[in-house]
Amino acid sequence: MQLYNYARSSASYRVRIALALKGLSYDYLPVHLLKNEQVAPAYSVLNAAQLVPLLIDGEERVTQSMAIIEYLDETHPEPPLLPGTPAERARIRALAQDIACEIHPLNNLRVLRYLVRDLKVSDEDKKRWYRHWVESGLAVVERRLDGHPSTGRFCHGDTPTLADCLLVPQIHNAQRFECSLAGLPTVMRIFEACMALDAFSKTQASECPDAG
Amino acid sequence: MQLYNYARSSASYRVRIALALKGLSYDYLPVHLLKNEQVAPAYSVLNAAQLVPLLIDGEERVTQSMAIIEYLDETHPEPPLLPGTPAERARIRALAQDIACEIHPLNNLRVLRYLVRDLKVSDEDKKRWYRHWVESGLAVVERRLDGHPSTGRFCHGDTPTLADCLLVPQIHNAQRFECSLAGLPTVMRIFEACMALDAFSKTQASECPDAG
Repeated sequence: MQLYNYARSSASYRVRIALALKGLSYDYLPVHLLKNEQVAPAYSVLNAAQLVPLLIDGEERVTQSMAIIEYLDETHPEPPLLPGTPAERARIRALAQDIACEIHPLNNLRVLRYLVRDLKVSDEDKKRWYRHWVESGLAVVERRLDGHPSTGRFCHGDTPTLADCLLVPQIHNAQRFECSLAGLPTVMRIFEACMALDAFSKTQASECPDAG
Repeated sequence: MQLYNYARSSASYRVRIALALKGLSYDYLPVHLLKNEQVAPAYSVLNAAQLVPLLIDGEERVTQSMAIIEYLDETHPEPPLLPGTPAERARIRALAQDIACEIHPLNNLRVLRYLVRDLKVSDEDKKRWYRHWVESGLAVVERRLDGHPSTGRFCHGDTPTLADCLLVPQIHNAQRFECSLAGLPTVMRIFEACMALDAFSKTQASECPDAG
């Protein structure tokens, strides 16, 4: 398999974690977002959305990080990243989507660029925007996790799932943009438990071939 | 089953379509977003995210529209909304996420409110923002669908899938905000094919008990 991705892309990091949890090897193909390599013709023909990550598996091209992780889980079931009953799987997916649909889309590079370049938002207001969605969004995740009987060492039970693949990159982004992580004891306990595992720590941005 | 939702919420509309495609009956419980009923204590205890939709199925509370639709597909498999091989399912999920992760989060009510109230963006710039993400995002969807061998009468094959449940509400939003739909022949052909079905037309905002 081949993964087109970028060290600092949190959607890419989600997939690197999943591949590592599954013990799958792959070719790391960097697409440098700050150099706009994602809109170059050579990449655009592979992924019409001009986004990373993109997984190539033989003849298949799979896009969108959550769809890629579900694909990996269906094609390489062990260890399961969506274990349990339909209701448990729904809880895991909903936690993932609380991050992938409510927090991250508001804070990715092209959105921040639009705020500054097109809406002429000040740098200070851009940072306020970033922190607002991260902090309010993570507060929701904390409320969902705290005291829920299915919350374990990780977001759902005692093994990592899709939800943890989404949570950890979001926390890295929050730290990088100096968001407040106060009031998130369950989230941060789970983050630390994840980062103690190679699958999460050895795939983080600073460990990637294109780190910098 | 009971569905907490709101006529004009496109995430709610996605789930209403899926329930109708499955032929499932449910109690329609309106949560009026413009009246901020989603942040009232009575609703907040049910859904910590203070978002619609929320599906109640016996003891289970399921949130996040895509997670709800996957839950319905696992608990009521016919007709399948995620048919095919892992790669086909990944294509359907990726199309859905092209809308749910790249377009809709930038345009929902609380984001527009933040732009206006907190960042003091003008009404004109707010509309420009809205149209930018809808038009650029739907152009990506068009490029993915156009000419792809799996595109049929609907986004994937000749029966509606999860992808169509996401596409149709997004087009309704685009029409309401007067976005340009030029250059989207495949998207609009599929939209018309969907709207010819009761599952899509009889669940749209204007047909809901809380329409207005």
